[in-house]
Amino acid sequence: MDPKKIVIVGGGFAGINLANRLADDNRFHITLVDRNNYNFFPPLLYQVATGFLEVSNISYPFRKLFRGKRNVSYRMAEFLRVDAGENRVILSNGELTYDYLVFATGTETNYFGMENVRKNAIPMKTINDAVSMRNVLLQRMERATVIEDPEEKRRLLTIVVAGAGPTGVELSGMFAEMRKNVILKEYPEFEGAGAKIYLVDGGSKVLAAMSEKSQQDSYEDLVKIGVEVKLNMQVKDFDGNIVTFANGETIETNTVIWAAGVTATRFEGLPAEAFGRGNRLMVDRYNKLRGSENIYAIGDTCISTEDPGFPQGHPQVAQVAIQQGQNLARNFKSALSGRTLSEFRYFDKGSMAIISRNRAVADIFKLHFKGFIAWFMWLFVHLMSLINYRNRLATLYNWAWAYFTKDQSLRFIIRPDPKPHDERVITGAAK
Amino acid sequence: MDPKKIVIVGGGFAGINLANRLADDNRFHITLVDRNNYNFFPPLLYQVATGFLEVSNISYPFRKLFRGKRNVSYRMAEFLRVDAGENRVILSNGELTYDYLVFATGTETNYFGMENVRKNAIPMKTINDAVSMRNVLLQRMERATVIEDPEEKRRLLTIVVAGAGPTGVELSGMFAEMRKNVILKEYPEFEGAGAKIYLVDGGSKVLAAMSEKSQQDSYEDLVKIGVEVKLNMQVKDFDGNIVTFANGETIETNTVIWAAGVTATRFEGLPAEAFGRGNRLMVDRYNKLRGSENIYAIGDTCISTEDPGFPQGHPQVAQVAIQQGQNLARNFKSALSGRTLSEFRYFDKGSMAIISRNRAVADIFKLHFKGFIAWFMWLFVHLMSLINYRNRLATLYNWAWAYFTKDQSLRFIIRPDPKPHDERVITGAAK
Repeated sequence: MDPKKIVIVGGGFAGINLANRLADDNRFHITLVDRNNYNFFPPLLYQVATGFLEVSNISYPFRKLFRGKRNVSYRMAEFLRVDAGENRVILSNGELTYDYLVFATGTETNYFGMENVRKNAIPMKTINDAVSMRNVLLQRMERATVIEDPEEKRRLLTIVVAGAGPTGVELSGMFAEMRKNVILKEYPEFEGAGAKIYLVDGGSKVLAAMSEKSQQDSYEDLVKIGVEVKLNMQVKDFDGNIVTFANGETIETNTVIWAAGVTATRFEGLPAEAFGRGNRLMVDRYNKLRGSENIYAIGDTCISTEDPGFPQGHPQVAQVAIQQGQNLARNFKSALSGRTLSEFRYFDKGSMAIISRNRAVADIFKLHFKGFIAWFMWLFVHLMSLINYRNRLATLYNWAWAYFTKDQSLRFIIRPDPKPHDERVITGAAK
Repeated sequence: MDPKKIVIVGGGFAGINLANRLADDNRFHITLVDRNNYNFFPPLLYQVATGFLEVSNISYPFRKLFRGKRNVSYRMAEFLRVDAGENRVILSNGELTYDYLVFATGTETNYFGMENVRKNAIPMKTINDAVSMRNVLLQRMERATVIEDPEEKRRLLTIVVAGAGPTGVELSGMFAEMRKNVILKEYPEFEGAGAKIYLVDGGSKVLAAMSEKSQQDSYEDLVKIGVEVKLNMQVKDFDGNIVTFANGETIETNTVIWAAGVTATRFEGLPAEAFGRGNRLMVDRYNKLRGSENIYAIGDTCISTEDPGFPQGHPQVAQVAIQQGQNLARNFKSALSGRTLSEFRYFDKGSMAIISRNRAVADIFKLHFKGFIAWFMWLFVHLMSLINYRNRLATLYNWAWAYFTKDQSLRFIIRPDPKPHDERVITGAAK
């Protein structure tokens, strides 16, 4: 029998876990399509953006990951559209046919149609976003050193983080610590500049998805370390100098970091009915796309209302993506062996967020933790979730260095300038 | 007495060593101007370009370097021109006045007027160059995986390194090792592609500045590991697909890495007579610019014919730059204290080049070393030359990992996209 051709679009938590579980089963041939040549660990992106971790600490090249796996190929390409009738996907540099197609495409930043915000705010979803943010923040600080006008200076140094989910909380906490331990020591020019760090959210809570105790503790911790937390404030506009809220309030700043929403991507070639809330692909309890026989979707990009514990669909978090990838791998194997398929049931291990040095909150199996113990759990869980020993050791090294020196070392403005004619690499069509 | 204002343009080996030696003497106030916000270690650039080291392993932010030094300021800016009559330098974002001005601007890549080569070849002088090169090479390999045409594939995978100095030798040796240990394992598509690695030079020798024994040994080592060494071949043109040599020979390739020459930069505001061979600023035995009373130049960007041991000028190497920076610092202090100035005398400690795993050549105090012992010396000297313990430890970690796994881990294509309106940070004028 020829191996079943499975095309996985997207190599995040969901796609990687699916591919890994199928990698040693020669009844399948897997092609993983991703526009980047590496997998990365989004929960620690904000530490790359703030110069505490290297890109390489949280990333791993796909080809290295699948080295020696004869039944896994990697294809660097943009996904363009699917031709479901022909079982064919069209990529930026060619085409692939499939027996099974799996969307594991995650989400992208959602600006809710605010074009100005899209143009002027800094997103936080990809490695390129994180490196760009590091560059932009460092450049703005350097710029501020030569500015005389106090208002212009304050605008350059004020940071508004929009979205009080884990990313927003962790980023604003990190900024508050950097202000204390790094910036005032190395930029004597900023003394008395009066720059503030804001965390704003349209809702009424910090960490809305966590327990009330975690919400309360994280709010108090953030205020204690000097973050201005502003709730029930919905961003309406940001022209690059002033952010305007729905209630008419404004904050003068050049820097809005946008962690306020995500959306799945609408792909060409699928019927409009396939897309649910937030453009998520509507799947059944086996992650199969409604109305299709051989197209699946897993992770943040899909929504299923058939898990009894989650009638509104699952939260868009790493654990769901991982478990869906693993379950789908099991089902692909079961189908070939004639065994019964497993319905997907999300097993919620809990969630956690770090706020600053020695402070975090965690809800684990309905228990609430805070302070140093939660902080230590956070470090341990994130370290162990990294993809391999190399990354774990290197991350541990950077963390230990940062902890003991109270310093952040990786403050480099890097702007590579790839040769323009290499754009064809991912956008041009293959012969 | 007001402190003497010293403006140093350029924070490489020369500039940093000068600034460091003056940093604790409050009779001076130093402003270091650099377009990048970090110092870096050029001898290991090629390892960043090939994914063996991180940018951060060989770089260090200026502000961190001078943290706590009250008499040192860092200014991120492009140097535009000097107004010597007014003791004033004009930067991209403002102006500075000086009592002493020091050029420590190093060199840039020299394409010898070949516009096509400048446009199509990959330079190797800066961190941005190295990251760009890593991106471009990885992209070309990915592109080659989807190419059917064998000639197009071979062109994408063939590498021509132009210039058989240490950079060219070390790069081509690294490529040969990567081909053996990494590429054929992770890109099964490349088997039988017939891609070659060339090292070409217009002269008749590999490592022309080293001893004859080192030249011979390195040549043999390179051939042994599969590098095609072509001497007496001067590049005349490179259109992006074919490199043409002065003798009419051609090599089909998309990738020429240009390590074949450097030139100093001609600055506005200095008389034409100030510039010597290769645009180097002509200085006396105290590194003072000819015809000036308070302008100096140190490192690769200057040339002095007044050192009896080096009547043709010093080689453009790190040791000269370091020693000139240190000597000038001593002289600035001596001048204020009324002591006699020290003439600059270069103390040549020798030179070395690594070729591959366990192979290197070294000429130390007229002794020649090769093989494992030279390789070990190379590692030790380069590790110890890194700027601080943090970088040394991290580099050692990456080296040890690469050595024992025969692998290179840092293969990421990263293309940050800073907000366009941030360009003003270094190009706009300050108010």
